[in-house]
Amino acid sequence: MSQPGGVWVAALTPMNPDLSPDTTKFVSHCRWLLDQGANGLAVLGTTGEANSFSVAEKRRLLDAVAEGGISGDKLLPGTGSCAIPDTVEMTKHALSHGAAGVVMLPPFYYKNVSDDGLFAAYSEVIQRVGDGKLRIYFYHFPQMSATPISHNLIERLLKAYPNTIAGIKDSSGNLDNMLEMCRRFSGFGVFAGSEQFLLPVLRAGGVGCISATANATIGMCVEVLNNKDSANVDALQNELTGQRLAIQRQVLIPALKSIAARHTGDKSWLVTRPPVVPLSASEEAALFTALDGTQFKLAA
Amino acid sequence: MSQPGGVWVAALTPMNPDLSPDTTKFVSHCRWLLDQGANGLAVLGTTGEANSFSVAEKRRLLDAVAEGGISGDKLLPGTGSCAIPDTVEMTKHALSHGAAGVVMLPPFYYKNVSDDGLFAAYSEVIQRVGDGKLRIYFYHFPQMSATPISHNLIERLLKAYPNTIAGIKDSSGNLDNMLEMCRRFSGFGVFAGSEQFLLPVLRAGGVGCISATANATIGMCVEVLNNKDSANVDALQNELTGQRLAIQRQVLIPALKSIAARHTGDKSWLVTRPPVVPLSASEEAALFTALDGTQFKLAA
Repeated sequence: MSQPGGVWVAALTPMNPDLSPDTTKFVSHCRWLLDQGANGLAVLGTTGEANSFSVAEKRRLLDAVAEGGISGDKLLPGTGSCAIPDTVEMTKHALSHGAAGVVMLPPFYYKNVSDDGLFAAYSEVIQRVGDGKLRIYFYHFPQMSATPISHNLIERLLKAYPNTIAGIKDSSGNLDNMLEMCRRFSGFGVFAGSEQFLLPVLRAGGVGCISATANATIGMCVEVLNNKDSANVDALQNELTGQRLAIQRQVLIPALKSIAARHTGDKSWLVTRPPVVPLSASEEAALFTALDGTQFKLAA
Repeated sequence: MSQPGGVWVAALTPMNPDLSPDTTKFVSHCRWLLDQGANGLAVLGTTGEANSFSVAEKRRLLDAVAEGGISGDKLLPGTGSCAIPDTVEMTKHALSHGAAGVVMLPPFYYKNVSDDGLFAAYSEVIQRVGDGKLRIYFYHFPQMSATPISHNLIERLLKAYPNTIAGIKDSSGNLDNMLEMCRRFSGFGVFAGSEQFLLPVLRAGGVGCISATANATIGMCVEVLNNKDSANVDALQNELTGQRLAIQRQVLIPALKSIAARHTGDKSWLVTRPPVVPLSASEEAALFTALDGTQFKLAA
């Protein structure tokens, strides 16, 4: 299987008024993102509010995507949780749907854990899953997990499981960290966690980006990707970065749901599961004003 | 029902070599703690590594405790997790065993969430559980959850659910915060999260402590509690504090498991679930040396 790359979207999860996932609308949104040119979907990630779902709810969402005809090679589901049995169950479930890989948070409740502890956790999951088809992308998001993935840890796990450790989603916002991993770990797929860093990471040998805001900026992301060797690509990246920065002035998840509601005219997009709450009216107005100052537009 | 108070132990969870909970040994340990004079047990907390267990594993541990004859009024199980459905399921299960209350972490994956978001999360859980017998103790442990419980949030939830919001376990280590809550919220049970603060919190009108290290210091904790109006109690508290500080120089969970292994002669106590890992030999030696410099002893 070729390594996943390009622009992958950390897909939003629409919800019903009772806060349950709206699987029908979820599948439609996933298809829409692929129709816009997304190379694949990092479903059940931070942006998808997956950390607020039970394992049973997450399983059903993956089942719905598969039943909706989206093939596993377009999927990098998030499967990492605090408890090894949950991570193992979701990872096996992702593999049962032929997922190209999984994006795996480290266990994130206990803090200041050692690399030995994280090595043991990933190792235990890999051995329990026991599937040669498993491809793990680490999820480095210290601002959210408060559990960073160190280069030392990557090196140790690459050495122990060279065929399983496939890459990383780096959502730290630290471009230097991404570039150093591109240099240091050959054959290791580095995804920027934001389209702001798409071009520099591609130029450094990284594989692409997995982004929350790509739910809205997918068109522009694809344009940068398709023109990466063109003379005008830096201008395109600058425009894309402007759109990203306009959105991330607000809390990302509700901001992206506000954009989806505006785009579709469907107010039910605004539903979030606590502790994530919708933007206030003034926050939403500020978001739209900022975005409208860019060339942002969503395809029909 | 009278409000829980006194010395409650955040019970350790012994594990089998395959990392599954050893329910038999767990029940024995719980009984031993009660025999030493613990007023009750905060099972399935941080110290119990409960955040590394699936909901199914946590349910079975609670069932085992009940089958072992420990009555619900001695239990304050931890039930808070990242996902509302999981928190609701565990909370209902705790109530089905007649638990005196539950210690409820806020959802802790998403960071920098607003008090509106945390209010919505607790409110949703309370409404879904829908049981007049529910008594919630907040779990304020910013160093671990990275999601503090503000006084504003407590005030709002007390106003909305006066019969349900029962108190807090404050593991911040910030005595001023504990004392201020004792002053500010009447009828709200403030447990210090460490026996280091047992006496000052009792004197300020708090109800006691819920402590990890009480797995080892339970005898001395009970002595402080029983002598709280005696002239020599400050000396007793100082000795207890010295024992606590000696233990917390090391990572608490494996340190407490090392102490349990030494005390019982049962090396299987050393098993922890990743990301928590056992102490190194030198860390364990340093722990024992520090403890042996106090009057620490465990009852037979």
